[in-house]
Amino acid sequence: MGMLTPTLQHYVAGIEQEITAAMPSTDTLQKTVSEAMAYACEAGGKRLRPLLVLAFAELCGGTAQTAMPYACAIEMIHCYSLVHDDLPCMDNSLLRRGKSSVFAKYGEDMALLAGDGLLTRAFEWGLKPSHVAAAGADRAVEAMAILADAAGINGMVGGQTIDLESEGKSIDMDTLCALQAGKTGALLTAACEMGAVLGGADATAREAARRYGMELGLCFQIIDDILDVTSTAETLGKPVGADEENLKVTYVSLLGLEEAKRLARYHTDEALAALSIFDEKASDLTQMTKALLERSM
Amino acid sequence: MGMLTPTLQHYVAGIEQEITAAMPSTDTLQKTVSEAMAYACEAGGKRLRPLLVLAFAELCGGTAQTAMPYACAIEMIHCYSLVHDDLPCMDNSLLRRGKSSVFAKYGEDMALLAGDGLLTRAFEWGLKPSHVAAAGADRAVEAMAILADAAGINGMVGGQTIDLESEGKSIDMDTLCALQAGKTGALLTAACEMGAVLGGADATAREAARRYGMELGLCFQIIDDILDVTSTAETLGKPVGADEENLKVTYVSLLGLEEAKRLARYHTDEALAALSIFDEKASDLTQMTKALLERSM
Repeated sequence: MGMLTPTLQHYVAGIEQEITAAMPSTDTLQKTVSEAMAYACEAGGKRLRPLLVLAFAELCGGTAQTAMPYACAIEMIHCYSLVHDDLPCMDNSLLRRGKSSVFAKYGEDMALLAGDGLLTRAFEWGLKPSHVAAAGADRAVEAMAILADAAGINGMVGGQTIDLESEGKSIDMDTLCALQAGKTGALLTAACEMGAVLGGADATAREAARRYGMELGLCFQIIDDILDVTSTAETLGKPVGADEENLKVTYVSLLGLEEAKRLARYHTDEALAALSIFDEKASDLTQMTKALLERSM
Repeated sequence: MGMLTPTLQHYVAGIEQEITAAMPSTDTLQKTVSEAMAYACEAGGKRLRPLLVLAFAELCGGTAQTAMPYACAIEMIHCYSLVHDDLPCMDNSLLRRGKSSVFAKYGEDMALLAGDGLLTRAFEWGLKPSHVAAAGADRAVEAMAILADAAGINGMVGGQTIDLESEGKSIDMDTLCALQAGKTGALLTAACEMGAVLGGADATAREAARRYGMELGLCFQIIDDILDVTSTAETLGKPVGADEENLKVTYVSLLGLEEAKRLARYHTDEALAALSIFDEKASDLTQMTKALLERSM
């Protein structure tokens, strides 16, 4: 995506390899769902969440290798959420990243099970004895507890619920923030905090990681809303103007374009400020964060 | 259900109370799904899985109190599976235990999210710091790893997949056994093994618990298949003859009624044999296991 330094690109390459290895065997009676699970996790996404786990693990004194199973676990959660989002009773999307969605390719029943299978596999993987032994039981438990909280009713599932309940309604800024915090913010924040915990962060570093994740999540959402208005379909790789067409309340529709841009800049500065305690060790993340903002200005 | 001794009834009462307390607050923006999650876990089921967690924890030297969060976690997994099973793309059931199914009451989208929320909540609950501290990190991790494996692609999700793939086909005994082992056997076996691990079982006691769970799972399935043929709707509380009507391959359709009864007796004896190392301490489970068989003879 042109925003990643060589170090971060190296992380992504490792993630692609490991998440493929983490998928269940397709040489079984339950072949179809195993294939659908692997298909849902295939390359194509930005791998932002697992990348943040690895980056913060190393920033806080750990190794990417020890943190890798937990990076894969959070990516499985992200991928499951996309599979269930695309189902007919949700967004009814036949396409995902330019390819057939899991439900379009494998059918609705298999997509439901593939999502359930991935959500469960994240915990199988993070709690696997060899992974727990490498990370240490206390850190592994804490990382997986953070992941469970962020994925559940107080995080991603909660955000989805607010989103469904808000459909066609004119929601206010508080509701939009709660929706975003759950739907996209929780998992990004969890990624940074999981990395910090796995790396053995002290309380200050852990809080900095958490703050960075929250601010990055806000940047991400606001910039997404801006690009839906200002970009072209060609640049974006997906249709523009979809939010307005769907009468979706966004940061742009609530605040106007200029104020949304100001807010994106503000949260980018806050994200960078959170990174400052890591000094130049955080230069890869700093560069990525700045590049993200520039995409929208 | 008339099969439970006072001790086991006491466990069930505790579970009813604790699982209600384990549900998320409904005083939030994500109210609807929180309510749907609680509705899905309301009384009505047999609570067999959590009961087995508590019973084996105590049989192996632990306390029901320490094991309770893990008992609730496995029941949440069981309840989520029922919610997703009832969805239109699966069994399309409007009724569950004589009440509206979650999807009939809350809509398909909310039922999907309630299932996802419950599956995730099981891990939130089992990994909660206070619960982990009470059980000990190593035992908590091991119990939750057993649960994840049993719920996932090599367990329940896998069994569901085989079930879907077998629809309308004449499957053989091996496939029926694999289907049953995943769909109902895995979670019952996990319940017993989780209890043993939480109670601090040695290798022999843990293996006995696991074997009991497997045999009980088989009894359960075979007896269910027998009752579908021999019982009346009144006694059973659900329509009889449904399997034949749905052209479902069962132990009775593959083996005939007499041979199925013989097999149920055989697995009951094996289950009782597995319990024998616990002596009279296991008398509650012995009684329950015998009563289960008698229901079908």
